[in-house]
Amino acid sequence: MTLTALETLDDTARALLFTEARTANSFADRPVTDDELHGIWELTRFAPTMANSQPLRVLFVRTDEGKARLLPHIAEGSNRNKAQAAPVVAVLAYDADFHEQFRVTFPDRAEMFVKSFGAMPAEAREPISKYSAALATGQFFLAVRAHGLAAGPMAGFDTAGIDAEFFAGTPWKSHLVVNIGHPGTDAWFPRLPRVDVADAVRWA
Amino acid sequence: MTLTALETLDDTARALLFTEARTANSFADRPVTDDELHGIWELTRFAPTMANSQPLRVLFVRTDEGKARLLPHIAEGSNRNKAQAAPVVAVLAYDADFHEQFRVTFPDRAEMFVKSFGAMPAEAREPISKYSAALATGQFFLAVRAHGLAAGPMAGFDTAGIDAEFFAGTPWKSHLVVNIGHPGTDAWFPRLPRVDVADAVRWA
Repeated sequence: MTLTALETLDDTARALLFTEARTANSFADRPVTDDELHGIWELTRFAPTMANSQPLRVLFVRTDEGKARLLPHIAEGSNRNKAQAAPVVAVLAYDADFHEQFRVTFPDRAEMFVKSFGAMPAEAREPISKYSAALATGQFFLAVRAHGLAAGPMAGFDTAGIDAEFFAGTPWKSHLVVNIGHPGTDAWFPRLPRVDVADAVRWA
Repeated sequence: MTLTALETLDDTARALLFTEARTANSFADRPVTDDELHGIWELTRFAPTMANSQPLRVLFVRTDEGKARLLPHIAEGSNRNKAQAAPVVAVLAYDADFHEQFRVTFPDRAEMFVKSFGAMPAEAREPISKYSAALATGQFFLAVRAHGLAAGPMAGFDTAGIDAEFFAGTPWKSHLVVNIGHPGTDAWFPRLPRVDVADAVRWA
């Protein structure tokens, strides 16, 4: 690729992804296809991560059986109700042993990376994984919207319970649950205020 | 807003933001305007965060004086050279005292949130702030690209050194440095491989 002059994003796309994008609190009774979910991952997987480590992992829960296993671990009340109503719930995880993938993701430096990250205690390696997974999660939200779908991220769930139910014996550790679907009636709460620019941005 | 049928993102925008988007390793000698940087923040600030906490903070370094203060804290070699050549270097920080902003960002629940997060020890509150800041950072990369600019995120820098130089006496803590500019000649390395979908995505 020798592209040097890049396009800019048009106003429709800016509205879709950023300025009009909202967290959905209800979902229409309209299915989300596995093709759409594959498509969401096909965009998300290009997110930049530390040393191309790509530690984000996704479990798409969309069957009745899957929902029955998931829902007891979601906080009772509005969070559980929303997850129940959403056509799909994505459990986002990070791979605590992401360094095992460097032979795939960074072949030229794999030996060095596998050794150095492998030598770290898990409690030092996990925050690194979670941070890069969070970078990719920010792009996951926009990949959902790119498919004309709405996302509803929720932190109110029992991470240990979900990990034991779905990820036992694996290095996957859940960090966020995201409801996905077509927005329902009154899906959006009023937009909450933003931090004042003067408090968020500085110049040097 | 009563929008219930959402658009999908067209192929040009998908290429710009996701499938053809790359980390830039060199920059053209073409300035980036403060208006463009304001525009990047105007998109980034809508990223979803835990309880609308919006803990991401940005320092845009684009003057010679700013660069002179910044560069000694960037890892010597290719990282420092890239930061020196980039028209703008964004230092991304998280606000360790993000809860002080809840009176602005979540007025209805401000008292409860300020009290509960304020009662946490800093070492419990900071990872929460850093995680939500990382979610917004993933969207920051795409906001840069939405402006026809390329981003080059780097983790190789001295966080304590940058924090002492720029953020002394404030609760801002640096977590990533991002070079920003128009891509230069040979700006892109060959695309590195992705984790196999079967290793990254599960279904239930």
